[in-house]
Amino acid sequence: MNEPYTSKLLERAVQELCRLPGVGRKTALRFALYLLKQDTASVLDFCQSLSDLRTRVKHCKVCHNLSDTDECNICASPNRDRSVICVVENIHSVMCIEHTAQFHGLYHVLGGVISPMDGIGPNDLTLESLFQRVEQGGVKEVILALNPTIEGDTTNFFISRRLAHTDVRISVLARGVSVGDDLEYTDEVTLGRSLVGRTPLK
Amino acid sequence: MNEPYTSKLLERAVQELCRLPGVGRKTALRFALYLLKQDTASVLDFCQSLSDLRTRVKHCKVCHNLSDTDECNICASPNRDRSVICVVENIHSVMCIEHTAQFHGLYHVLGGVISPMDGIGPNDLTLESLFQRVEQGGVKEVILALNPTIEGDTTNFFISRRLAHTDVRISVLARGVSVGDDLEYTDEVTLGRSLVGRTPLK
Repeated sequence: MNEPYTSKLLERAVQELCRLPGVGRKTALRFALYLLKQDTASVLDFCQSLSDLRTRVKHCKVCHNLSDTDECNICASPNRDRSVICVVENIHSVMCIEHTAQFHGLYHVLGGVISPMDGIGPNDLTLESLFQRVEQGGVKEVILALNPTIEGDTTNFFISRRLAHTDVRISVLARGVSVGDDLEYTDEVTLGRSLVGRTPLK
Repeated sequence: MNEPYTSKLLERAVQELCRLPGVGRKTALRFALYLLKQDTASVLDFCQSLSDLRTRVKHCKVCHNLSDTDECNICASPNRDRSVICVVENIHSVMCIEHTAQFHGLYHVLGGVISPMDGIGPNDLTLESLFQRVEQGGVKEVILALNPTIEGDTTNFFISRRLAHTDVRISVLARGVSVGDDLEYTDEVTLGRSLVGRTPLK
């Protein structure tokens, strides 16, 4: 269905906005009409921030997290424990874990997980750089904090086998029932895992 | 809740994207990370299309519709019936009516409706320009196609009273049951109006 736009510029803006994930033609038109109502300066600021994002954001050379500088502020901070590396899938996970305020080590962002179905092999991720970091020494523990999926588990297995010859401790996030959840509504795989991995109290 | 961004550029882009209507921090971050994964050229195109939209789109000097030129392509078209003007609230309505392919006249975009509650009076709309168009002659009918709300009806009343001294026909969109709807689920005001405004078959 072709919308009868009276302005090619509007049509082009709507087409471009449609490319954003989860945005259809109606939402894109709403965004475009919203932008049209704003000050010119504030719309130009908006555009500048997005082009800056694409052209100026870098990946930290140590942990591959997004950063404005060569080394991100987590890797550069003197307050972080350099002996623990938390391996995560993407920057979303870094933000979630930082949010818990329970982790004070460094990160390593893989950029995905091994997924043969999607054609993603070990060489498409930053795994080599992780192994180099571990083999350079100074690392006592690697925490695998990938998403609890088949692909995440495959990647966990790959990493732990590859680091088997080192004396670095390797751990994985605990799998179990969510805090505040009801056992009745917990799926049987999670409940089963929480039984197998039960925590001793005494 | 402050998100722990490792990149100020990312944080700024997310803040800017949050300004879009209906977009929260999670969606904005999703948009930002999506843009980060695209080609630089395509992101710059994206930004260019939005800044062009703001800086280069004009309002048609005749009907106040959005246009790339001084006169929009509907007003400039030799195929449109210049004796009928359809008065609408905004460009959305123009697109909806064009979509029906039932109207071949010209439009007049008011830019809103009279709404004392929101502080919008007749002078905030393009009403004077509509009256000038009608008074210049050549117009046989004005179709009022505003949204069927109290404010829309107020605006209809204002326009019809103001044009009462002319010999121009003034009509309003038919109010009645939707095609394919069930009488059981039609609200009583609409059903009542559809009885009052019943269409003779014979």
